[in-house]
Amino acid sequence: MTPDPFHSLDGTLDQVWQRLARGVADRRAAARHPTLATVGPDGPDLRTVVLRAARRSDAQLEVHTDLRSAKVLHIGREPRIAMHVWDAKADCQIRINALASCLSGEDGRGRFAQVPEPARRVYAGFPPPGKVLAVPEEHGETEDPADHFCVLVLDVVRIETLHLGPDRHRRAVFTAAGGWSGSWIAP
Amino acid sequence: MTPDPFHSLDGTLDQVWQRLARGVADRRAAARHPTLATVGPDGPDLRTVVLRAARRSDAQLEVHTDLRSAKVLHIGREPRIAMHVWDAKADCQIRINALASCLSGEDGRGRFAQVPEPARRVYAGFPPPGKVLAVPEEHGETEDPADHFCVLVLDVVRIETLHLGPDRHRRAVFTAAGGWSGSWIAP
Repeated sequence: MTPDPFHSLDGTLDQVWQRLARGVADRRAAARHPTLATVGPDGPDLRTVVLRAARRSDAQLEVHTDLRSAKVLHIGREPRIAMHVWDAKADCQIRINALASCLSGEDGRGRFAQVPEPARRVYAGFPPPGKVLAVPEEHGETEDPADHFCVLVLDVVRIETLHLGPDRHRRAVFTAAGGWSGSWIAP
Repeated sequence: MTPDPFHSLDGTLDQVWQRLARGVADRRAAARHPTLATVGPDGPDLRTVVLRAARRSDAQLEVHTDLRSAKVLHIGREPRIAMHVWDAKADCQIRINALASCLSGEDGRGRFAQVPEPARRVYAGFPPPGKVLAVPEEHGETEDPADHFCVLVLDVVRIETLHLGPDRHRRAVFTAAGGWSGSWIAP
């Protein structure tokens, strides 16, 4: 029997990045749809996002969004964000803190070229996201999506895990400042 | 065929509260395990919580936690929180903003009396949540759980929904200040 990877700090961090990578590659993986928190003028705000990239080597994640969305506005004032994944198959909660920046226009063009045509329509909406509509049918896809496409680049600074094991819960924290070596903490 | 409840604002808000109520009653319902955002000194923080009460009449939700947890500390400084549920069966994302307050000690005693014995052990942990451990086995359940039990009462001020329909996405917002009448907004 192979040892449980969540019984070691290194094994736990390996699992986090493997599961994030799986989220990018596999539509059905838990990490495909993390919950993203930003802080706006009225407090925190949460929404589901689609994970588009996960690079362990530089501790970066990517999400695509509409440049006109509230989260882009929030990040302009408060770049500190949080991300959350509950991976039921691994019995593991992944909590991430990161600094967000926004690539758009020329800087985002390379990424936009890789977005398949049907997915591009998301960025063509008018009126802009969050505007009041008399009826839902008032909303159409009439804009140039390239104008509104934005890549949120998330520089991960902290990862916390909670693994619900059959014997006990194991909680661990890993930070960029600590070289990702990790510590166990009380659940 | 009954009309799709998500095609009307009233129907949408009914669905939200029905699904929150189901989360309280049914361990397998999506709203059983919302994601809760608080804002701390290092930015937003997210974690899974268990929904313990949902009262539409006074727009309140409840969650139980450990009085020593970071979220209680966060709420003491910034009571504005957010909560998120993705209900796959309804194809609906529920986003909630609320003001949190904490009932503990005498005030929380009535609720604690209703917590079954096995669930009480969660509040008996030592060292306190978040303290560094040399090994996970250093953590035990040696404290009096009544001392650390806390009810987070969430006064809901805003509910936003995104329903992914076969024809189009419908996004709606409802506020306490607006008497919960609701508006459609651009997705």
